[in-house]
Amino acid sequence: MNPETCDPRPVIVTGDRPTGPLHLGHYVGSLRNRVALQATHRQFVLVADAQALTDNAQDPDRIRRNILEVALDYLAVGIDPALSTVCVQSALPALAELTQLYLNLVTVARLERNPTVRQEIQARGFGRDIPAGFLCYPVAQAADITAFRATLVPVGEDQAPMIEQTNEIVRRVNRQAGRPLLPEARALIPETGRLPGIDGRAKMSKSQGNAVALSAPPEAIREAVRRMYTDPGHLRVSDPGRVEGNVVFTYLDAFDPDGAAVAELKARYRRGGLGDTAVKARLEAVLDAFLAPLRERRAALAQRPDEVLDLLRDGTKRAQRLTADTLEAVRDGLGVFTLAA
Amino acid sequence: MNPETCDPRPVIVTGDRPTGPLHLGHYVGSLRNRVALQATHRQFVLVADAQALTDNAQDPDRIRRNILEVALDYLAVGIDPALSTVCVQSALPALAELTQLYLNLVTVARLERNPTVRQEIQARGFGRDIPAGFLCYPVAQAADITAFRATLVPVGEDQAPMIEQTNEIVRRVNRQAGRPLLPEARALIPETGRLPGIDGRAKMSKSQGNAVALSAPPEAIREAVRRMYTDPGHLRVSDPGRVEGNVVFTYLDAFDPDGAAVAELKARYRRGGLGDTAVKARLEAVLDAFLAPLRERRAALAQRPDEVLDLLRDGTKRAQRLTADTLEAVRDGLGVFTLAA
Repeated sequence: MNPETCDPRPVIVTGDRPTGPLHLGHYVGSLRNRVALQATHRQFVLVADAQALTDNAQDPDRIRRNILEVALDYLAVGIDPALSTVCVQSALPALAELTQLYLNLVTVARLERNPTVRQEIQARGFGRDIPAGFLCYPVAQAADITAFRATLVPVGEDQAPMIEQTNEIVRRVNRQAGRPLLPEARALIPETGRLPGIDGRAKMSKSQGNAVALSAPPEAIREAVRRMYTDPGHLRVSDPGRVEGNVVFTYLDAFDPDGAAVAELKARYRRGGLGDTAVKARLEAVLDAFLAPLRERRAALAQRPDEVLDLLRDGTKRAQRLTADTLEAVRDGLGVFTLAA
Repeated sequence: MNPETCDPRPVIVTGDRPTGPLHLGHYVGSLRNRVALQATHRQFVLVADAQALTDNAQDPDRIRRNILEVALDYLAVGIDPALSTVCVQSALPALAELTQLYLNLVTVARLERNPTVRQEIQARGFGRDIPAGFLCYPVAQAADITAFRATLVPVGEDQAPMIEQTNEIVRRVNRQAGRPLLPEARALIPETGRLPGIDGRAKMSKSQGNAVALSAPPEAIREAVRRMYTDPGHLRVSDPGRVEGNVVFTYLDAFDPDGAAVAELKARYRRGGLGDTAVKARLEAVLDAFLAPLRERRAALAQRPDEVLDLLRDGTKRAQRLTADTLEAVRDGLGVFTLAA
């Protein structure tokens, strides 16, 4: 059959909704892990446009436009198409077919109990008027995960219930098939926490206006650092300041390669005598040094969109084969009729 | 593009869930109309196994087994694969993809308000534990109808809300596309009413044990007619009897080619002096005369299952092309990203 299925490395499925450019929060929370993991894992990275459409059906242009942008961000940070398979979710028909099969194995009550869905329904203010596709998205996610036979799924802690939902479906499929057709997946929760927004809120998000895009030009970095939340009680340079919850220091911890220098700055800031302006100037230089090479790689790639689309196409074709194989196995295992060609 | 799209005939989509053999109720309610309509309409007949799985996920073997049985019933009654396209629903991936797209355009509240879904949820006793796929099935049905660009959908009166649901999706897609991409569909409600079950209940259904299969052998016909509901007040041959609600007469009306003789029998029955046994003997002969040639054709075809599967395969391939074309147009119209090959 497929020689790739003999690959013994653990399989990771991950991805992003192409609703806007990726930002530093994505980098800290997932992208840098992907760059590390791709050397030792079989990694599939989905540009999750089908999922993005579940709550953006009225604005498909935004989703479509951002697919290339997200692909550029991936390549700029070092996701290597020779090591990771990057693919476009809506171009994988097997995912829709698996979703359709799995929807019969999950009750509406179970979907409504899913804490992630409940939270997101609240956060988005959908009430009872949620799109049916949005209610069903944990099932679509189970299709994504199982289609690649993933065993590891990098998620935030709040997404762990999604993995449990997937594994319930996996067990149901395996029970009906009478054999371990699909592997259960495990959440891979990153050790480093989430990068806060520049306003100090827990989550960086473009829609909340507290994000720094990976493609941010120097002026945008300067402006973001200028607006960054520090210690509201630190009014004069000579005052002692708080480092905990001070976003500037959180970012220095995340991006400054000189940990000793950051420790020294923290000590001075706590004692008093170090102003926000000086710390922010350092952070601006650090972020600029970090983002400048990304920005350059991205700009160079953006000049050759056809090459980027070719890479997406290659990854998508590979993903099409793999997911079609899984669909065939699941249909067979569940006893769905097949008209041999 | 596709030369078939230049065919000016109205397009019909219809089909059956392969949950068991088709029966006389199917014949009166839909099959005979299909045989008539196939001469003047482009008719697509779906063996709706994917839909059947929405509430039979625990028993896929039954669905799989009955696909060939339903195809045999179709051919036996005169659905002509040269005139009608007979296809297997689960073998059309475009339907799952269209369903996925349409699910984003319909709210959960709207699905829950659908009267057909509400009734069937009650009838099946699902409560809140309905499979998600079952809640979503009006959307899947909209995918079936629109995938073939159907303008006419033969349905019972109770199914009319499904067409309205479909047309809401059609209008939403067309509005977003900015052009009349999909046609609205119209319910084609048969003039002749439903054939009651042999027990007098309004609906003939295998699961209620009140059906006569199209493939019924003579003994089964005899037994069904013997058990048939007549006029419970008609105790002696000499008593006047009621013809209205008397299933034997309803069946004679439906199947006896000699209308004048049936009218004469009714008059005698009403006056008194005609026993149930005599009327039932006539009905048994009528049904046997009607079903014998069907049974023979069916038995002959059942000897050559490979030929029947070939016919299904041909129809399914044709349907795959057509539905894939529609999917491409809908994706384009809705602005979904497409990676050109």
